[in-house]
Amino acid sequence: MASRTRDPVALAEAVLAGDRAALPRLVSVVEAGGAPAIEVGRRVFARSGDAYTVGITGPPGAGKSTLTDRLITALRRRDEEVAVLAVDPSSPFTGGALLGDRVRMVDHALDRGVFVRSIATRGHLGGLSLAVPEIVRVLDAAGFPIVLVETVGVGQSEVEIAGAADTTVVVLTPGAGDSVQANKAGLFEVADLFIINKADHAGTVELERDLRFMMELTSWPDGWRPPIVRTVAVQGDGVDELDDMIRAHRAHLESTGGLLVRRARRARAELERVVRERVAQEARNALGDVRYRALLDDVEAHRVDPWTAADRLLRAE
Amino acid sequence: MASRTRDPVALAEAVLAGDRAALPRLVSVVEAGGAPAIEVGRRVFARSGDAYTVGITGPPGAGKSTLTDRLITALRRRDEEVAVLAVDPSSPFTGGALLGDRVRMVDHALDRGVFVRSIATRGHLGGLSLAVPEIVRVLDAAGFPIVLVETVGVGQSEVEIAGAADTTVVVLTPGAGDSVQANKAGLFEVADLFIINKADHAGTVELERDLRFMMELTSWPDGWRPPIVRTVAVQGDGVDELDDMIRAHRAHLESTGGLLVRRARRARAELERVVRERVAQEARNALGDVRYRALLDDVEAHRVDPWTAADRLLRAE
Repeated sequence: MASRTRDPVALAEAVLAGDRAALPRLVSVVEAGGAPAIEVGRRVFARSGDAYTVGITGPPGAGKSTLTDRLITALRRRDEEVAVLAVDPSSPFTGGALLGDRVRMVDHALDRGVFVRSIATRGHLGGLSLAVPEIVRVLDAAGFPIVLVETVGVGQSEVEIAGAADTTVVVLTPGAGDSVQANKAGLFEVADLFIINKADHAGTVELERDLRFMMELTSWPDGWRPPIVRTVAVQGDGVDELDDMIRAHRAHLESTGGLLVRRARRARAELERVVRERVAQEARNALGDVRYRALLDDVEAHRVDPWTAADRLLRAE
Repeated sequence: MASRTRDPVALAEAVLAGDRAALPRLVSVVEAGGAPAIEVGRRVFARSGDAYTVGITGPPGAGKSTLTDRLITALRRRDEEVAVLAVDPSSPFTGGALLGDRVRMVDHALDRGVFVRSIATRGHLGGLSLAVPEIVRVLDAAGFPIVLVETVGVGQSEVEIAGAADTTVVVLTPGAGDSVQANKAGLFEVADLFIINKADHAGTVELERDLRFMMELTSWPDGWRPPIVRTVAVQGDGVDELDDMIRAHRAHLESTGGLLVRRARRARAELERVVRERVAQEARNALGDVRYRALLDDVEAHRVDPWTAADRLLRAE
């Protein structure tokens, strides 16, 4: 146990056997992507699917990190284990993501029932929406019954990531025209719960009124109308109510079959993505094949037509 | 001969055997695309590669069609057979492309050494840049030693199509800021020859001065600096000079090896395109496979991981 191996399969086996000390390295393998990440995905897949995922998103400065920390405390009070994946838009040059981990870990550093990991959005070049679900799967397979995914609600992929959770919490703050921003960023569509954080600030009543007005204009086909919860996260106010509302939404999804529908939609999206990636890779391989140059010569000389050449490259004839 | 068959292979065989009456139907098969077009491409490929292609492009209203007609007359005077493919931006609703054929055919209708075909850009939905080279290949294989491709120099794909010819002629007119437009549309980069048509109009001197100034700022790595030819196409003025300049450019390309380089680049681009199309089709087939639903069920139930499912869909395991 707790060996220093970096072999993906050995790390996955260790984590599946309950070795949480191997989890940070396993997450790093998956975050880096490529063939080792797929190997890990294949290995842990059958053991995943039990975790309940909660996305927490909203504009920068809404207090999402503080709220997440308080939610962890609430969950731990009831002895629930929890893993947190924070998608941090910090530049890799400032070490923002790593610093974030340290700050977050202060309260929960000695608690083996809590796992916190930040990943930076920079350097992922659009691959973020691929890496996050795979990391969540690893945390799920590691046995955490609840996985929180915190993203900044700026940018389509960040909103999509949080919106792909079982329950999505959208955090807003009074003032600053947040309700309008939420609408623009697509946050309104993904919300299962609205939090008005910093609810001791002026503008709380107006923000809630705006949200209720926007909800009037929206249909809720699956019978769940997002509740609005006021919190003051720095004081811990309203956090238990948030926890209760997440549970209420989960109970709703489980009783109506909505949870199965959401998860089936995610499974479908992932399978389609994997198929498309596979064939794109196949094209890159074919065009990087050692026979490519020789076949191209044949095509240039009109000895082989391009369709036959493509067949030979792709079918390894 | 001249049977009314629409079977792609039979049509291709007829055309390769010299039956020009089958050529319009064969072009229609290739224009429609899909598997029959590929079948034709495979069949005619070995017989193609001898035609010299000339692209003629420029802003709308520059007089490209008239110039093309006069060029046909000049070529016929020297007994050269010529095929013309006009990419016409007319709406399919007005029947513009067909009407264009009739107008163009007036002068050359009884001449078996001339073949003219217009295709509409509408309805191709981006597939134009695929269809045009395939149609040119058919005209080439049908034995036409010269193929003219006329496109409106508006829109990236139209400019690219004309720019993919052995010699590309860019037609401008005085006034209307054509030199600036030419620069914006990317026409400047593809030009091997510049035509100032309607050179009896005011602004001719200024346009030529602008073009020469822009050429000063450009490097011509393959040793050919585009000449500028003044024409008045409606009167036939300058058309012989255009014809001479096309020949001069061809002689340059043939003596320097530039023609082989251009054609090799086109062959490479086409092979890459065919490979990418093939694999994209493979992805569509896989996701439309009858086993897709069953495998998706297995993935949803966590019985099969998505990578294994993708393998099974793509490898027909």
